[in-house]
Amino acid sequence: MSSNTIHAWAAPSKGAKLEPFDYDAGPLGPEHVEVQVEHVGICHSDLSMLDNEWGSTKYPFVPGHEIVGTITAVGSQVKGRKAGDRVGIGWFTGSCLHCRPCMAGDQHMCRATEQTIVGRHGGFADRVRAQWAWTFPLPAKLDAASAGPLFCGGITVFTPLLQANLKPTMRAGVVGIGGLGHLAVKFLKAWGCEVTAFTSSAAKHAEAKALGAHHAIASTDAAALKQVRGSLDLIIVTVNVPLDWNAYVAALRPKGTLHFVGAILQPVPVSVFSLMATKTVTGSGTGSPTAIADMLDFCARHQIAPQVEAFPMAKVNEAMEHLRNGKPRYRVVLTR
Amino acid sequence: MSSNTIHAWAAPSKGAKLEPFDYDAGPLGPEHVEVQVEHVGICHSDLSMLDNEWGSTKYPFVPGHEIVGTITAVGSQVKGRKAGDRVGIGWFTGSCLHCRPCMAGDQHMCRATEQTIVGRHGGFADRVRAQWAWTFPLPAKLDAASAGPLFCGGITVFTPLLQANLKPTMRAGVVGIGGLGHLAVKFLKAWGCEVTAFTSSAAKHAEAKALGAHHAIASTDAAALKQVRGSLDLIIVTVNVPLDWNAYVAALRPKGTLHFVGAILQPVPVSVFSLMATKTVTGSGTGSPTAIADMLDFCARHQIAPQVEAFPMAKVNEAMEHLRNGKPRYRVVLTR
Repeated sequence: MSSNTIHAWAAPSKGAKLEPFDYDAGPLGPEHVEVQVEHVGICHSDLSMLDNEWGSTKYPFVPGHEIVGTITAVGSQVKGRKAGDRVGIGWFTGSCLHCRPCMAGDQHMCRATEQTIVGRHGGFADRVRAQWAWTFPLPAKLDAASAGPLFCGGITVFTPLLQANLKPTMRAGVVGIGGLGHLAVKFLKAWGCEVTAFTSSAAKHAEAKALGAHHAIASTDAAALKQVRGSLDLIIVTVNVPLDWNAYVAALRPKGTLHFVGAILQPVPVSVFSLMATKTVTGSGTGSPTAIADMLDFCARHQIAPQVEAFPMAKVNEAMEHLRNGKPRYRVVLTR
Repeated sequence: MSSNTIHAWAAPSKGAKLEPFDYDAGPLGPEHVEVQVEHVGICHSDLSMLDNEWGSTKYPFVPGHEIVGTITAVGSQVKGRKAGDRVGIGWFTGSCLHCRPCMAGDQHMCRATEQTIVGRHGGFADRVRAQWAWTFPLPAKLDAASAGPLFCGGITVFTPLLQANLKPTMRAGVVGIGGLGHLAVKFLKAWGCEVTAFTSSAAKHAEAKALGAHHAIASTDAAALKQVRGSLDLIIVTVNVPLDWNAYVAALRPKGTLHFVGAILQPVPVSVFSLMATKTVTGSGTGSPTAIADMLDFCARHQIAPQVEAFPMAKVNEAMEHLRNGKPRYRVVLTR
């Protein structure tokens, strides 16, 4: 085998168990770096892709897009990165860098993005490659073993705070206290906001408060939702199940925003009358490279780390099953 | 009759023709001014209220909330207004002036607003009263006979430009070219934007262009909507009928906003996946007092006036029927 052979874990078909899988990555692209994987988080979208829920999966499928590792090789045109840098990689591994969104600092909105696990092989592997712009130097103060989930789950819930122009004087809610939601609570607490957690799990009320939430409410409790009517400036929805969305819009203050980051497949029926109180419904995917860099600095400043459970990569199938059963508190990270 | 008797036109019951109607307005409140009505526009919501579409109408019902007139009397606590001032009055005639929204400059979001034609009598009358803060001095450069519709229809479509932080470099669309939409096109043209009109009426394509639109598209033409996919930063929806809203969300650029100002009764089914391209769905009612003042200045600067058809107030029933038949180009104004 050549040195371009990458040793990975792949599902041969829809929903299948992962098996060792070698592939030839070819010569390193001029703008790409090669990263030796040290830790890789498991995101719910790894599972959705494994099961081909969105119809875009190619098999054999190598999951993994919350990667922390060290650069071992750089292409001839790489800027700002060098061998030995410890970096993170998230949902994207490349963008065109010259279209309007790329030039405007919204590289995650580029129409020609390369997505880490879509049409290429991800980070459940000994090595992975990415365009330099989509590798993010890890601040020394951040723990490499738990930082992986920041690069997808983290930026996914950090972006809404930036997009809403959220101020520390405001009140925010988080719907769903899991891989994404637990980070949203930590971010909002450090941001200085009053934080309300909405969760379907009674067991998670105390946990949400331990994470920094000031209040915890059952996400389907109509009476409790009524009590917070008109009180929240931002609600971040991390779940992918339908809830009584009009009750959540009603929970917003005028000028408030209901922000979806979970991939809810059913259309959300929005009442125009309720929007006329200058309320907003929006969404986002991950975030821009500068937003990711700002998030990493913010995490280092406030000692924010994902709460993770570590599995050796050899136990990847046990780890996937653990996630499938909704068990992780709150994110699983594989360690090589 | 005392001098507090106001001579108005009222509907005695749901959907009925308007008849002369006198009522005793009582002593003038300390914060209120009395305005001698000169011109009053007819808004579609006057008709909705006449027909009790929203369930909040009290009869006898006096319509009229796009009023231009001259102050004839002021209460003891009135600030900044004096007898002889020519002013406009819109949807609101009062707010508490001390709650959080009022203190924050969002007086239209006050929970204790007084609404001109809800639970009180409106401007189809010789006189009408309003709290000083909700009367707006008319710039001398504006024509009093056509300015009335600015105070409800105008501010309703001006607010989205402010709320979206719209820049003249951007591209905007207007759905529905009627009382509201024709003003939206004029505002957007003067704002410096590229303007696309969406209308169900083929006859209005040329009219929309004459008003300042660069492009006109049939609002139900799926192929034409596909052609503008991903191109608009703001779409203002002034209609109150359901359309293919996902096609309109698709017509937005990333970071774009679909803004509803029409009272659409059916829930709007929004695809969360489409919002994840950082797209926003929002709405608003009218606007704040400072937004109204800014709109008036903007209109004076750019010589923007509603395009109106004048009827004498004695022909109010003919005028209402004209509106009911969807005939006005684009707003009816009654003149005393």
